[in-house]
Amino acid sequence: MKQNLLVVISGPAGSGKGTVIKKVFEKSDEFHLSVSATTRLPRPGEKEGVNYFYMTREQFEELIKDGKVLEYTEYCGNYYGTPKEKVFETLKEKNVLLEIEVEGAMQIKSRFPDAVLILLLPPSYKELRKRLYGRGTETPEVIEKRLAHAEYELGFMDKYDYVIVNKDGGIDEAAEDIISIVKSEKKRAKRCTEVKDKFYE
Amino acid sequence: MKQNLLVVISGPAGSGKGTVIKKVFEKSDEFHLSVSATTRLPRPGEKEGVNYFYMTREQFEELIKDGKVLEYTEYCGNYYGTPKEKVFETLKEKNVLLEIEVEGAMQIKSRFPDAVLILLLPPSYKELRKRLYGRGTETPEVIEKRLAHAEYELGFMDKYDYVIVNKDGGIDEAAEDIISIVKSEKKRAKRCTEVKDKFYE
Repeated sequence: MKQNLLVVISGPAGSGKGTVIKKVFEKSDEFHLSVSATTRLPRPGEKEGVNYFYMTREQFEELIKDGKVLEYTEYCGNYYGTPKEKVFETLKEKNVLLEIEVEGAMQIKSRFPDAVLILLLPPSYKELRKRLYGRGTETPEVIEKRLAHAEYELGFMDKYDYVIVNKDGGIDEAAEDIISIVKSEKKRAKRCTEVKDKFYE
Repeated sequence: MKQNLLVVISGPAGSGKGTVIKKVFEKSDEFHLSVSATTRLPRPGEKEGVNYFYMTREQFEELIKDGKVLEYTEYCGNYYGTPKEKVFETLKEKNVLLEIEVEGAMQIKSRFPDAVLILLLPPSYKELRKRLYGRGTETPEVIEKRLAHAEYELGFMDKYDYVIVNKDGGIDEAAEDIISIVKSEKKRAKRCTEVKDKFYE
């Protein structure tokens, strides 16, 4: 049986995470992007089951209580998390990508050691600063906060399995790296226990 | 600096090891095949530095004494081993492939935990038997010995990092798997310590 993988991708704002993940889906049909649940209200244009699964605080806390979230966090008074059932259902068909923050990634790591954790990084602090100011969508205060947060995220590098540096113009390469990492991980001896049984069939 | 890898490839006779390795070199110029040293005499047609580095027993034991072999074994009264210096020299330029037996692979694993160990396997015992009898170059006694040895090698599967099953007609795929594994291994967080320093350059 083909064993699919739970793949966690984290990375600072400005690392190009979203674009790289989109590119992965263009290049391969063996991945599915997990949709998070949240208690925050939908913003205009957002769609249930596409951007998030929207739920009440009570519903979310029920999920937590029943152990039905893979990871969750509370941010600005709202819960964000990954519903477990949907992920396990999807894993039967495809590899599941989770785009989550460092804290969620650490929760996944401790509960599902078979998951593969990938940290996507910009090539340098200088470059990151350039990208963030370049896109001009945030105030300097927000950008400086994001830069400080990027340094914090870098501190978790050793807890990740893989590190991909998303160079300028490197979207394609970074996406191929992700695909290649998942392909290789499936050949890891610890994941190939069925090979021995098959040998004597 | 590009960090090259020491890659150990083992596999039973009939796993297609030699053919797969040849294919790796056709597909990528980032690999170098390490040439072993031996105390056995050259066979007709064999060339110094191509098939083996040939040396006397005294020379080989001198290497062992000085810690100048990565791994070695004694087989039918002759030493076989991997001279260290040449490997480390070559690693500055390319990934180095070592095609060695299980025992040598285990020596490498304990002395150089950064090495990547790949076990190449035939899809099944039945298929292996078919391949070995099919090539018609060995007596049934030798073939049965090889089959028994394959079972012994399979017992070391868990000590390897990766397992590649070389399916019938799967030479290309197996070679690509090796290339992909090495590419991915270079992105492992534990090998990317320089990323942090570069971030602040």
